[in-house]
Amino acid sequence: MSFLRFDNTTNDWVVFAPERARRAQDHKQSPADIKGLLPYDEHCPFCPGNERLTPPEIFAVRDGSQRNGPGWQTRAIPNRFPALRIEEDHARREEGAVFRAMGGCGAHEVIIESPAHDRYLCQQPLDHVELVVRTLQTRFNDLMQDDRFQSIIIFKNHGEGAGTSLLHPHWQLIATPVVPRLLRLKHAVATDFYDQTGDCLYCVLLREELAHGDRVVVENEHFAAVAPYASHVPFETWVIPKSHQSCFGWVPAEQIRPLAEILRTLLSKYFVCLDNPHFNLAINTAPRGDEGKAYFLWHIEILPRLTTPAGFELGSGMSINTVLPEDAARYLRETGIS
Amino acid sequence: MSFLRFDNTTNDWVVFAPERARRAQDHKQSPADIKGLLPYDEHCPFCPGNERLTPPEIFAVRDGSQRNGPGWQTRAIPNRFPALRIEEDHARREEGAVFRAMGGCGAHEVIIESPAHDRYLCQQPLDHVELVVRTLQTRFNDLMQDDRFQSIIIFKNHGEGAGTSLLHPHWQLIATPVVPRLLRLKHAVATDFYDQTGDCLYCVLLREELAHGDRVVVENEHFAAVAPYASHVPFETWVIPKSHQSCFGWVPAEQIRPLAEILRTLLSKYFVCLDNPHFNLAINTAPRGDEGKAYFLWHIEILPRLTTPAGFELGSGMSINTVLPEDAARYLRETGIS
Repeated sequence: MSFLRFDNTTNDWVVFAPERARRAQDHKQSPADIKGLLPYDEHCPFCPGNERLTPPEIFAVRDGSQRNGPGWQTRAIPNRFPALRIEEDHARREEGAVFRAMGGCGAHEVIIESPAHDRYLCQQPLDHVELVVRTLQTRFNDLMQDDRFQSIIIFKNHGEGAGTSLLHPHWQLIATPVVPRLLRLKHAVATDFYDQTGDCLYCVLLREELAHGDRVVVENEHFAAVAPYASHVPFETWVIPKSHQSCFGWVPAEQIRPLAEILRTLLSKYFVCLDNPHFNLAINTAPRGDEGKAYFLWHIEILPRLTTPAGFELGSGMSINTVLPEDAARYLRETGIS
Repeated sequence: MSFLRFDNTTNDWVVFAPERARRAQDHKQSPADIKGLLPYDEHCPFCPGNERLTPPEIFAVRDGSQRNGPGWQTRAIPNRFPALRIEEDHARREEGAVFRAMGGCGAHEVIIESPAHDRYLCQQPLDHVELVVRTLQTRFNDLMQDDRFQSIIIFKNHGEGAGTSLLHPHWQLIATPVVPRLLRLKHAVATDFYDQTGDCLYCVLLREELAHGDRVVVENEHFAAVAPYASHVPFETWVIPKSHQSCFGWVPAEQIRPLAEILRTLLSKYFVCLDNPHFNLAINTAPRGDEGKAYFLWHIEILPRLTTPAGFELGSGMSINTVLPEDAARYLRETGIS
């Protein structure tokens, strides 16, 4: 039996066809790392001692050690093959009668998570996860000072199936000279909801999920991790703040540790339940100018790569999800990590 | 040097970062079939003689042979694990205060392309490709008689990297009880353009591409294959009718052969240039009620799976394309197949 659920945040219908799947707990595939990593790889540009293999660092958490040498805890560097660059222009230009282009102005950074080549975020001590989140926020806020950048996407690709080519755990950050249309859509939908109801759509959805409970994976005082009602892919989860915050850059300092804590717990559950799955993680946050608005709630989306979107998904923009979020949440929740 | 191009059909900006790629002609990966197929596989449910392994057929092109036995040229059957089913209801229902669901009413069919287990569409004689396109149109028009279906997506997944699990060449067709949001968006954008200019956006884009020429791969009297200006993925192409047609179901009978011809040529070029790449193909066509409108042009989109969309693409909805469509088109055009 299949049915559809409406994604209130994008106005997409998602098809749920659980009979197309094996059981939820069978959604295991080859783990993201099958090679047996070592703590240090002499050829890895992200390992300490190999700093000469990367462009000069933009930022690093160091305890007195020298720039571009070892002795750092987290390290931000320019991507060697940047999608967008700070040196490009951001002028629009017409090309012929109907086409329009613009310069590739932006930024593309890599945040190396830790010196350890073989330690995933969920295996780091909480103090270090907190440091990683603080580093992400620092880089976000620093880049937002450049008002050519309209939007910043912070993301993490875990495993080759999720598009990563370097195994040493890292995050990326791309600042764009335009607001992505999808982000505009989410804002328009949420603004419309606010105009109708006087409430933040995401806050209402979270309240409903918390009241309902069966799609909640884990929560603490400030954050909840939820498998959303209209999840687009199997085992999709969102980490959502419990108080209204539009912008990741504005998360209060005292909430970074609770955020690190819930992220670490959630990723540990994935690691155990789904045997180190390939996944993408992206932070959704307000674009420039909307940071203080009451309409939007920043959040983290985690999308495991357990299935392959194909012609239907690409042609229609609709998703077929074979695992109910209730089942995914229960399975993740009941794994004994807290 | 990178830059952005605006996709006039969706209002997305696409990032072009050719330096992130190897040269266009190096975009080869493992071919879609590495196993060395044979013309017949006794375990394949799509091979002739194995009809008992599939649900009863819905339609077949036969020359007097018996239903659900061998002797067919193309064959339409229900998907064994359907995403949507004709037996489900299509009632909307509220779930709690904010959530909304509906029954999984729809259809999910498989069109087996030919009896040959090992022959790709581009290797079929033109007569047979024409028969396949006619079969697709027949199934489309038959399903559109059921007015519970709002939209039909016809698609083909070629290769495991494109999400197919059965190698025997086939297409799929999913009828949905709602219009996908992406299709509504494309219509809204095109309608807005029409209201401003009095012209069909797609016809204008095609005229511009044909006048420009360097993104055209192949054309005949009725159709053109183009690598669009703001291609989202490397080697994306569209097959577009040269005269205004909103709906695939309404393509005049005498244009099916020219359509088959251009599709066959284009797929042959992919096969040779990119060494049998994994790809998804989807037909974009007007939803119910918009078939006769002047705003939209039905077309085929072909999306090779040469790169892996990752956290940035999933988080922002924007694409990073490493191959310029001009380069892709030249490479495909100059391959000696016509």
